[in-house]
Amino acid sequence: MTTSAQTERIHKALDTFAIELPSWGFSNTGTRFGKFIQDSAATTTEEKLADAGQVHHFTGCCPSVATHVLWDFPEGLKSTSSVIASAAKAGVRLGAINPNVFQDQIYKNGSLGNPNTKIRQAALDHILESVEIGKQTGSRDVSLWFGDGSSYPGSQSIRHRKQWFTEGLKETHAHLSPQQRMLVEYKPFEPYFYHSDLGDWGMALVLSRHAGPQAKVLVDTGHHYQAQNIEQIVAWLLSEDMLGGFHFNDRRYADDDLTFGSIDPYQAFRIFNEVIGFERETGKRADIAYMIDQSHNLKDKTEEMIQTATTAQELYSKAVLVDHEKLTHHQLKGELLDAEECLKSAFSSDVRPAIREWRKSKGLAEEPLQAFRASGYTARAEKERGAKNKGAVASYA
Amino acid sequence: MTTSAQTERIHKALDTFAIELPSWGFSNTGTRFGKFIQDSAATTTEEKLADAGQVHHFTGCCPSVATHVLWDFPEGLKSTSSVIASAAKAGVRLGAINPNVFQDQIYKNGSLGNPNTKIRQAALDHILESVEIGKQTGSRDVSLWFGDGSSYPGSQSIRHRKQWFTEGLKETHAHLSPQQRMLVEYKPFEPYFYHSDLGDWGMALVLSRHAGPQAKVLVDTGHHYQAQNIEQIVAWLLSEDMLGGFHFNDRRYADDDLTFGSIDPYQAFRIFNEVIGFERETGKRADIAYMIDQSHNLKDKTEEMIQTATTAQELYSKAVLVDHEKLTHHQLKGELLDAEECLKSAFSSDVRPAIREWRKSKGLAEEPLQAFRASGYTARAEKERGAKNKGAVASYA
Amino acid sequence: MTTSAQTERIHKALDTFAIELPSWGFSNTGTRFGKFIQDSAATTTEEKLADAGQVHHFTGCCPSVATHVLWDFPEGLKSTSSVIASAAKAGVRLGAINPNVFQDQIYKNGSLGNPNTKIRQAALDHILESVEIGKQTGSRDVSLWFGDGSSYPGSQSIRHRKQWFTEGLKETHAHLSPQQRMLVEYKPFEPYFYHSDLGDWGMALVLSRHAGPQAKVLVDTGHHYQAQNIEQIVAWLLSEDMLGGFHFNDRRYADDDLTFGSIDPYQAFRIFNEVIGFERETGKRADIAYMIDQSHNLKDKTEEMIQTATTAQELYSKAVLVDHEKLTHHQLKGELLDAEECLKSAFSSDVRPAIREWRKSKGLAEEPLQAFRASGYTARAEKERGAKNKGAVASYA
Amino acid sequence: MTTSAQTERIHKALDTFAIELPSWGFSNTGTRFGKFIQDSAATTTEEKLADAGQVHHFTGCCPSVATHVLWDFPEGLKSTSSVIASAAKAGVRLGAINPNVFQDQIYKNGSLGNPNTKIRQAALDHILESVEIGKQTGSRDVSLWFGDGSSYPGSQSIRHRKQWFTEGLKETHAHLSPQQRMLVEYKPFEPYFYHSDLGDWGMALVLSRHAGPQAKVLVDTGHHYQAQNIEQIVAWLLSEDMLGGFHFNDRRYADDDLTFGSIDPYQAFRIFNEVIGFERETGKRADIAYMIDQSHNLKDKTEEMIQTATTAQELYSKAVLVDHEKLTHHQLKGELLDAEECLKSAFSSDVRPAIREWRKSKGLAEEPLQAFRASGYTARAEKERGAKNKGAVASYA
Repeated sequence: MTTSAQTERIHKALDTFAIELPSWGFSNTGTRFGKFIQDSAATTTEEKLADAGQVHHFTGCCPSVATHVLWDFPEGLKSTSSVIASAAKAGVRLGAINPNVFQDQIYKNGSLGNPNTKIRQAALDHILESVEIGKQTGSRDVSLWFGDGSSYPGSQSIRHRKQWFTEGLKETHAHLSPQQRMLVEYKPFEPYFYHSDLGDWGMALVLSRHAGPQAKVLVDTGHHYQAQNIEQIVAWLLSEDMLGGFHFNDRRYADDDLTFGSIDPYQAFRIFNEVIGFERETGKRADIAYMIDQSHNLKDKTEEMIQTATTAQELYSKAVLVDHEKLTHHQLKGELLDAEECLKSAFSSDVRPAIREWRKSKGLAEEPLQAFRASGYTARAEKERGAKNKGAVASYA
Repeated sequence: MTTSAQTERIHKALDTFAIELPSWGFSNTGTRFGKFIQDSAATTTEEKLADAGQVHHFTGCCPSVATHVLWDFPEGLKSTSSVIASAAKAGVRLGAINPNVFQDQIYKNGSLGNPNTKIRQAALDHILESVEIGKQTGSRDVSLWFGDGSSYPGSQSIRHRKQWFTEGLKETHAHLSPQQRMLVEYKPFEPYFYHSDLGDWGMALVLSRHAGPQAKVLVDTGHHYQAQNIEQIVAWLLSEDMLGGFHFNDRRYADDDLTFGSIDPYQAFRIFNEVIGFERETGKRADIAYMIDQSHNLKDKTEEMIQTATTAQELYSKAVLVDHEKLTHHQLKGELLDAEECLKSAFSSDVRPAIREWRKSKGLAEEPLQAFRASGYTARAEKERGAKNKGAVASYA
Repeated sequence: MTTSAQTERIHKALDTFAIELPSWGFSNTGTRFGKFIQDSAATTTEEKLADAGQVHHFTGCCPSVATHVLWDFPEGLKSTSSVIASAAKAGVRLGAINPNVFQDQIYKNGSLGNPNTKIRQAALDHILESVEIGKQTGSRDVSLWFGDGSSYPGSQSIRHRKQWFTEGLKETHAHLSPQQRMLVEYKPFEPYFYHSDLGDWGMALVLSRHAGPQAKVLVDTGHHYQAQNIEQIVAWLLSEDMLGGFHFNDRRYADDDLTFGSIDPYQAFRIFNEVIGFERETGKRADIAYMIDQSHNLKDKTEEMIQTATTAQELYSKAVLVDHEKLTHHQLKGELLDAEECLKSAFSSDVRPAIREWRKSKGLAEEPLQAFRASGYTARAEKERGAKNKGAVASYA
Repeated sequence: MTTSAQTERIHKALDTFAIELPSWGFSNTGTRFGKFIQDSAATTTEEKLADAGQVHHFTGCCPSVATHVLWDFPEGLKSTSSVIASAAKAGVRLGAINPNVFQDQIYKNGSLGNPNTKIRQAALDHILESVEIGKQTGSRDVSLWFGDGSSYPGSQSIRHRKQWFTEGLKETHAHLSPQQRMLVEYKPFEPYFYHSDLGDWGMALVLSRHAGPQAKVLVDTGHHYQAQNIEQIVAWLLSEDMLGGFHFNDRRYADDDLTFGSIDPYQAFRIFNEVIGFERETGKRADIAYMIDQSHNLKDKTEEMIQTATTAQELYSKAVLVDHEKLTHHQLKGELLDAEECLKSAFSSDVRPAIREWRKSKGLAEEPLQAFRASGYTARAEKERGAKNKGAVASYA
């Protein structure tokens, strides 16, 4: 159990800790081997936003929703007002705007890295429209993930593609309003397997710097090599003033998009610890957009979102408990075991009672998941959406 | 260039080297992020078999085709005669029968490892029907790949599932005719990510031995941890008389299902070398069913199959050149560098002229890919199948 | 904080939870780049046993010490009586006997897998002497780790070496007394890099079964591929009655031999959970020899041992808290999220107060590390051993 | 066999292809489990340079030797003239200067990243002395590999250490002459395991740019995560004008320091292909210092160096054969299979006859290894050095 001073620190931290929800996390997704369809899954943007509103209603820490232009703004800029209205109705606001330049058939050989000039232009046009949508929705971040890469050695020119990406990202940056940022994500594998044009944080950093000062790097837990030290990347990006966002999820092998903290909670805690340590020492606020980015193929989607949000609160609260003065003292004196134990001690603490107290103080249910289940929302959604979801069944071959 | 004695060895080896084609490799497949649709992709079993027939026609080394019961025998046993007829028409015979117990919605929590007795029974029923289909098609192997696993620690009982798998596989074995074999495949990740019930060759071996003497292990290049020594597994399974099949493909990170030999040709060569070395030393024939198992999302499917078959012939021919007497001599004397150079020398040899000669002697085109392209088959297929393929487009979310 | 019922379960579990210490863990070890020498490190078997006695004195859970024949029994069987006496003096008993067939210059190309018959015999002789030592010390387990492997493709015959290993292990088994066991360890890399003769649990299982019924498999945390599911291997070996021992340590990349639980405490917890779950369901005792096997290059060796023992107690206690009835219930009903939360809840509990209580009830210091530090033991050791340790400095080249 | 035009291209390329040898590669090295001592291994700098001279004598492509200040300049600057003389006598010149800030006992918690100011200063002093030695030996490159890191989460401040590294590298850069470069190497693991201060190419790039324009990145095959695309990193660094050097070796799992091309020759070929492709398209010379950096624990050291140099010539020659115009044409048109086959075709070519011809034309032995063996050099070295090498035996514990 935490002391009252610790509890207070946790409460203060939770007051400002917010995570964005992804609209696409409420619809049926899966693996290349198929999707397990849920009758209650959202089938429209309105439904996605409604579900997100539920998560925020029960957790109090998910006030905004990221959207995917292809799926949520089917008519582009013309869709904007109706999406804004749906968000307002659901009690959330619109967050990061995500262009989609990987799904259309023209992107078989890439988008901004495509050897075909016209396809590069089509991708850029879609991205620039996303920038405009962001201006209208009042979203600060345009979030750029590129599937671009190649699957066979020699089949594409790594160097030419780097050049084309540089040009496209510069052009994108030129269209940002002063309030906007562009977040450049990286990923070393999938959907192409031999090379990814933006394969690691170093590549995202180099291209972001080429693009301009409003371009920052976006980190995603699952987009790393096995054994890669993600918290070190976070620490370095913070110290270079280049960390713009972090996508939560977990994984065992590849980009498995599992529930945050479900496989390696200690790693998640250490990532938060680097952020909080940076803030304490520099007195600056780490300006990071946190978002959940998972694929919910097995658990109920809204339930898994609530589970993720509460898990994130727990791991963040544990990180808040780290005694940084003591930690730094031991680090500087080379007292390795004591420094390590200082960190471990925070992780070993049970913060759940303190978080329940915080919820109570905010008028939230102490157990968000149970409260959501008791609300009957899922049963209603199954009834309303069941028929519409039948079409989502997909076959591997 | 190879000497005439070497050329002769290669020709003799190619006379018996055959690879099975997978029917599903001719239809549109992709990643969870989508499929890039080809107008010429096969949309029916008849078309798949026709395409496979083309590959065999131009390479001369792909006389049989593996089928997936769910996709190729939509009416189960009733479909058998028409599939046999289509194969005959295409100039190929039917090979391994593959049950599919991962795609149906009931398999969300597994098939033979499902905690629900009824679903385990449904999976078993489908497998037993596949065994019967195999008897009718005259196929020797029933090829069992199970997607079964779990994605979250604690969500399933690893030990109970092992028990259920043991029971299901024993029951399957009991239904085999004396001529049939069941091949048990393993894979450490995907479509579940925390644990796979049949995660590695050790698990496949243990369960195969529990099932009975006609159960053998099936190895797939992409179903391994990074850095795992696949040729060692092949050597061990051969020495335990437990290797039944090998699925060709290549990968950089996960189960990428890329073209065989496209990423690590030296590894492919070493796998063949273990097989050939085993045969030379023991005087036994390694009774391994070779099959291509790739996902052709980017290259033309039939072209990639031809490329794969010719690459396999090249790497197999290089392995045929290894001087095993010399190799063993150096190994036994601990002359590491000489032994290694003996192996490398075979790999460095250019076997392409010898293979072209062999093709000529068989009345085959010297360059199968060019001959296939010149035939105009793809253009005809695009015309006939284009409209039918439009429906295959899938969305991530 | 735990409830009183939970506290009681923890206390009961701790009463029987014991971990063996490795004698070599108290002497100076390091990486190929060098060792960081500690003045207080043990330089003789007597000193190693004395240090181990300290760990047991302060933690109460480390009653036995594993020895390495090469280092601890320099005169083989003749050394036995003096080592037994030193152990008694230190308040510990002798545990597993570890032959060493990797360090001598003759083992350059392997031990039991060496292509040279004489060297295979020398290795076997050393192992059989270790078996005899075990009989005299009353040790139950002979613990077999083989560095054997090759670093270059082709340089050794994988299949021949498997055969030689089979013969050597059978011969070893034939010399065991009815009370003895032989534990066969596996490791996929290092000190050879292309192949390890006993590379994974499947290989250890196959060879153990060839050897005889008293041969069991030994698992070591660091001896796995990245992302490999270790608790699944533990569950399978338990269900096959083939798990004999477990070596504790942790790692980020390879066989880093870091402090247990320092990198991935949740994984360690899950391993314990599989063991305890097996015991609860079967009513059998999992007959596993637990041992710490770490390389203490940076932290004070005795302190790190105490830290490890207390960490193991914590993670084991958390696993004791898992509500297996509830877990199984949710698993069987396919309630994934509930099953997962059931497991997570035990891990999130703070068991430190309960463990402190247990220590108090046993007359142990509540904080073993602080008590050890307060004892002044290290300062005395530095004084007595400092000069002797200077010689341990090693150079990479 | 290559055509005469191809042969000519290979000959021209080999005329300028040179690889540096590492002095430490001729002395006894090993793993943490021990060294297998060779009687003929070099024990003094003079002997190392003499051995290197043999490699150059027989291969004609290794004109320079990298030195390690700690081992080769035991008296620092005062040793310079004698080392220069030894090199001249051996027929080689001195290449990159390597400070050693990982082996001394003071570096337990790091060198330029050490929390202790005095130790940081000691490390800097040693590096600056190395810069001065480089000026005197006429060496262009000071090659900086830092073992620095931490093995336990929390035990060191990642961010502080980055800052200290920035300062130390800036100071180093300030002491370079206009002719000198500093090469900054990276490595993700070993000898520390939780984090490495310079863990990947992105970190090396960021710090090199902070240091100044004469700082470039140094790539080493073994210093990457599994499945990482090394040739992409090479392509990116070249396009950023930041690639300074490349260390040859190969590996299966970690930094195994095996013979170049022994595990994955196709990867080595692709790396060369990126370099040559860059040169052809830009018309610039890629200013990369190539060096062998291997640990020869099993094969005869000089023989393995010769094997490595000839393997590098082969793989480089294959890369020279790539038809870049054709490759680029197919890449731009999205003809993936044709582009891939264009690359593969060069790799499949047997370049050994062309290389033998080149050797003949230069008055070199056609088979360098056989010629070296015939020279009797090793037997003489064994006789002269045997006794001195006995002391190199090391024990794990």
